Amino acid sequence: MNERIFNFSAGPAALPLQVLEQIQAEFLNFKGSGMSVTEVSHRSKWFDDVIEDAKARAARLLKLEKDFHVLFVQGGASLQFAMIPMNLLPEGRSADYVDTGTWSTKAIKEARIQGKTVNVVASSEDKKFSYVPQDISFSPDAAYVHITSNNTIKGTQWASFPDTSGVPMVCDMSSDFLSRPLDPSPFGLIYAGAQKNLGPAGVALVIIRHDMLERVPPGLPTMLKYTTFVDKNSMFNTPPCFAIYTIDLVLKWLEETIGGLEKMEKLNQEKAGLLYQAIDRMEFYSGTAEKDSRSLMNVTFRLPSEELEKQFVQQALKNGLGGLKGHRSVGGCRASIYNATPVEAVRALVDFMKEFARKHG
Amino acid sequence: MNERIFNFSAGPAALPLQVLEQIQAEFLNFKGSGMSVTEVSHRSKWFDDVIEDAKARAARLLKLEKDFHVLFVQGGASLQFAMIPMNLLPEGRSADYVDTGTWSTKAIKEARIQGKTVNVVASSEDKKFSYVPQDISFSPDAAYVHITSNNTIKGTQWASFPDTSGVPMVCDMSSDFLSRPLDPSPFGLIYAGAQKNLGPAGVALVIIRHDMLERVPPGLPTMLKYTTFVDKNSMFNTPPCFAIYTIDLVLKWLEETIGGLEKMEKLNQEKAGLLYQAIDRMEFYSGTAEKDSRSLMNVTFRLPSEELEKQFVQQALKNGLGGLKGHRSVGGCRASIYNATPVEAVRALVDFMKEFARKHG
Repeated sequence: MNERIFNFSAGPAALPLQVLEQIQAEFLNFKGSGMSVTEVSHRSKWFDDVIEDAKARAARLLKLEKDFHVLFVQGGASLQFAMIPMNLLPEGRSADYVDTGTWSTKAIKEARIQGKTVNVVASSEDKKFSYVPQDISFSPDAAYVHITSNNTIKGTQWASFPDTSGVPMVCDMSSDFLSRPLDPSPFGLIYAGAQKNLGPAGVALVIIRHDMLERVPPGLPTMLKYTTFVDKNSMFNTPPCFAIYTIDLVLKWLEETIGGLEKMEKLNQEKAGLLYQAIDRMEFYSGTAEKDSRSLMNVTFRLPSEELEKQFVQQALKNGLGGLKGHRSVGGCRASIYNATPVEAVRALVDFMKEFARKHG
Repeated sequence: MNERIFNFSAGPAALPLQVLEQIQAEFLNFKGSGMSVTEVSHRSKWFDDVIEDAKARAARLLKLEKDFHVLFVQGGASLQFAMIPMNLLPEGRSADYVDTGTWSTKAIKEARIQGKTVNVVASSEDKKFSYVPQDISFSPDAAYVHITSNNTIKGTQWASFPDTSGVPMVCDMSSDFLSRPLDPSPFGLIYAGAQKNLGPAGVALVIIRHDMLERVPPGLPTMLKYTTFVDKNSMFNTPPCFAIYTIDLVLKWLEETIGGLEKMEKLNQEKAGLLYQAIDRMEFYSGTAEKDSRSLMNVTFRLPSEELEKQFVQQALKNGLGGLKGHRSVGGCRASIYNATPVEAVRALVDFMKEFARKHG
């Protein structure tokens, strides 16, 4: 294929074209350094400007007060599943987890592997994780409440965050990070693997509230302590420079081209609206998530048969619409429409869906 | 600066220009996928080809038998300092470590943080780590012997590896990985942060011998167990795709353009020879490492005064020779001449050194 396609992959996922073009243009000589951004020292002025700019942009977009630290940690959200209880769940205390499927389930598993006490205070397993639980009773003495704001595989999303009565929330926002405005104050920690809404794979952005650092116990390996990343500005060792640089460009695009999170949210609502409307209006397609729990990021749907789903995915790709296969654990189809997916991509997908339904319905 | 410079940085470091040019050329559309390599799913055929090619090339270059696994792990060598004792040093046993400065010292520290028993069987601290200890008595019952093959900061390198009488060696090869042929058989584990000789920052390549996996204890977090990376082909979660892709291109360059590790070693000997000859012939410069322990990768040297060293680094940069400042912990000057540094770069540096000595000597 000589042309770029519209990419609906769940992660790694589409990045803004203008970001990719800037990376390409300056790839052999970064900011007049005479070096590629992949060759520049992380202790140089060139890279220092990148990481400081990325932190400042993230803080502005999310309206973070000074008591929040923005960190870049390798290992993805999966390492955060382990680091969170390791750092923030002291001996003798317990944490509340809400299980909304796959990623939440893994987060719970990693806490328990370490012998930590986890209360699963709510779960939507009874209906194949097709909804987000409401009216949850949280434990007032929990060390934290862990939730997954958007469930990439199940196609569900918290429309609004629960009231935990002052217990700090810890939230995996990997698949809807920066997709809508946020009040950060109830959160003790927010984390997001970059490869969905933020940049290339290979780094997680972690936001931690300063008071949470008091819980970090002695005796942890240096690379697994949040205090190391705070004290060393995410550069105890060489950070994943290229990933952080790309994140900085994506954040710049969000601020300067899109115009901030309110505008981003409107675009995301428009995109998801177009797609869910198409699914609801055509009997040929059926959404898998309950309507009040539908994700604005990952739209999961079924066709009348698995054979048709297979044809749908293949023919879509021939029409320049890629990545529409559902996760191997659940099957079906999925269109991931993260921040970087343009409205035109969704319009093209809706047109294709109409055409496909006409032919095969 | 409009032109590219010769980059002598210690890491992130120079990459082969032809690799950078290929990345740039195919950055918007990877192998006809219609997507950037940063946007392609790690579960796709496109990325599968990349990771399998990288593993096969590493295995061919290092003549690895089938009992070695090639893994890609995030967190750099610094996370390996912790993972190695966590996985390979069982309760009730001890490991031998040789302390050749900074990185070795950190590896020892991370083992001890976990309460593991470490015997420092040799150290060159008595002479500011300016040499590599010889004639070491290793413990026959050690779980492993840990060494650092090249010491980036101190400018020393093991000219040949010690005989550990069958005790598996664990070796940090971050700064001389693939710089010379290797007999892998005495090694239980080899690790290398990519950002020196292999690719961009954000991944460590780990080679582990199959029998070492039997030591991995139960109860470790999933992302910190070598068995996870072996069982899931380094893709339990989304791997750092861009870094692995770049590594694959560097390995291809090593095999096909350079022609393998014997040829690479000759080039590295030639480069280091030119530079050490210049240092030894001019009284103005003095090498800091003992001659029989000199590194072929990181050439450390002093000038008559710190003021002259500062001028040297600044004027060199004006002449298109970058990254010559010594590590902040030791001062002085350092020219890192990894695989990707061309002979012309070293010739240009030697010319500059002669000129600078003439003016200021």
